[in-house]
Amino acid sequence: MSDFAMIQAAAKRLKGYSRRTPLLSSPFLDEIAGRRVLVKAECLQHTGSFKFRGGWSAISALTETQRARGVIAFSSGNHAQGVAAAAKAHGVAAVILMPADAPRLKIDNTRALGAEVVLYDRAAGEDRDAIGHQLAEARGLTLIKPYDEPQVIAGQGTTGLEIAEQAAAADVDAADVLVCCGGGGLTSGIALALEAKAPGLRVRPVEPERFDDVTRSLASGKIERNREISGSICDAVLTPSPGEITFPVLQRLCGPGVVVTEDEALHAVALAFVRLKIVLEPGGAVALAAALFHGDQIKGDAVIALATGGNVDAALFQRALSLYA
Amino acid sequence: MSDFAMIQAAAKRLKGYSRRTPLLSSPFLDEIAGRRVLVKAECLQHTGSFKFRGGWSAISALTETQRARGVIAFSSGNHAQGVAAAAKAHGVAAVILMPADAPRLKIDNTRALGAEVVLYDRAAGEDRDAIGHQLAEARGLTLIKPYDEPQVIAGQGTTGLEIAEQAAAADVDAADVLVCCGGGGLTSGIALALEAKAPGLRVRPVEPERFDDVTRSLASGKIERNREISGSICDAVLTPSPGEITFPVLQRLCGPGVVVTEDEALHAVALAFVRLKIVLEPGGAVALAAALFHGDQIKGDAVIALATGGNVDAALFQRALSLYA
Repeated sequence: MSDFAMIQAAAKRLKGYSRRTPLLSSPFLDEIAGRRVLVKAECLQHTGSFKFRGGWSAISALTETQRARGVIAFSSGNHAQGVAAAAKAHGVAAVILMPADAPRLKIDNTRALGAEVVLYDRAAGEDRDAIGHQLAEARGLTLIKPYDEPQVIAGQGTTGLEIAEQAAAADVDAADVLVCCGGGGLTSGIALALEAKAPGLRVRPVEPERFDDVTRSLASGKIERNREISGSICDAVLTPSPGEITFPVLQRLCGPGVVVTEDEALHAVALAFVRLKIVLEPGGAVALAAALFHGDQIKGDAVIALATGGNVDAALFQRALSLYA
Repeated sequence: MSDFAMIQAAAKRLKGYSRRTPLLSSPFLDEIAGRRVLVKAECLQHTGSFKFRGGWSAISALTETQRARGVIAFSSGNHAQGVAAAAKAHGVAAVILMPADAPRLKIDNTRALGAEVVLYDRAAGEDRDAIGHQLAEARGLTLIKPYDEPQVIAGQGTTGLEIAEQAAAADVDAADVLVCCGGGGLTSGIALALEAKAPGLRVRPVEPERFDDVTRSLASGKIERNREISGSICDAVLTPSPGEITFPVLQRLCGPGVVVTEDEALHAVALAFVRLKIVLEPGGAVALAAALFHGDQIKGDAVIALATGGNVDAALFQRALSLYA
């Protein structure tokens, strides 16, 4: 289980390696939202997403024997890059299992960061878990899960420590904190950090339409699954269901989920370009989309939105600008 | 005259109002440049460029009488927005004279920030200075020049204080600091700050082709003028010549200038999108272009490049991505 002490320990291991990302804002976004909007720009993190934190946390916590054998991870892209970069910095070999339809940029970057990339075809029903476990067993690799893994959750939770300090500096002590949510690693990590450091800040998971497993699970009180496992431009936050470890944390600490459309995510990508000068991928923009376009579900004079990643192909980004900039 | 004490005083007035922008990097950019590249992301400053610092510094230094009468500024866009935002926050009326061919986004933003925008036609030879001085005199407005103004230079110099600290934290104590240069306000301000705080860091002005007045002036030892005054996608850094106040500072403290092509600036815009997840305008990317594509003119294992602004129209940004992303 993850807890606040693990987040503090992860923060020590990450110190000097992860970036303290800025909390950005624009009066133009405030006007659209009808309240202050503070955007935690984790797209500016190393490898272009918050996943670097979890990857570094997990790899820096390995034993010497585990480091010598290497690690394996499953990921559509951002976790892949985070683990690959952290592994390289620690001199640890990394194998990454990626869906063959993941964005080209994410596959290329993962390879360029020194990882061995193994592609599988998710549309053809190839079983990622079976392939991964087989590889792990054959080579003695340690599996670093993308979210249901205590040290990964602890690493993502360091984002919450920064939010607590930055919100206080911005005179915000009570607000909803909207988090782009896949399996719940970042969401539960931030919730644990804020429980300890800024109890007036309430975490709200945000998901894209058709992949609202966390929102439905929180509403029903049990783990719900998505019908689909691919086919959204919000690839960064597509997971089958909340995790076994993350879900109880989400249940205990988070407010209701918010669901946005793909077009709202693209619109948020364009507004982040025009108003904040940051590059977001659609999956990394769903929380900002909720802040801007679902204000009726949010309480308070201010809202904090996580901008979780910016690894977007140029063509998709240009589409967002053509539609909304 | 501007000096280090004025920069320190400006930093006190800006504290809590300007953003401390991050120093970003990417192993992929290091590989292109053949050395470490550290990018000071001033595009993330309020209003999307470093100009907010100079605007705030100048307006916060006005007397009560001056504040009551209001201010006037000339600008193609970034200084306009910086002055407009700072004036609004101080409750000071602002008139901004802008060329009619300035990017639409910059004109719209300046108006939306509450300033009265007066357009003039630079192609038709309308005399900006004459129009401005006439307005200033008629209404008792204080003119806030874009670069040849001690309090503006002091405000821009606060960027240098941050660079000194951030470079030290990154273990860089000797390097060229490449600065996108128009009239030399930012360049001279940073040079003054680094002279006092990080003497191993040497400022180098960077300009786009055809608008290399500072580079030529440094080479000849006297103020040289550009033949043209418009007609580059690098609109943010087009000025007729270095300033009377800035030039002696540039002469005393800066290394030789570097000149980049418009295509190199667009290429740097695309690489900043892919690798740093920041939005740059071409004029704000010339220093990064020099770091990436003119490494033969740079010394040392590391280089620091200012990314000065991100107020770019979507169509031009899309062009950069289509060509180079």
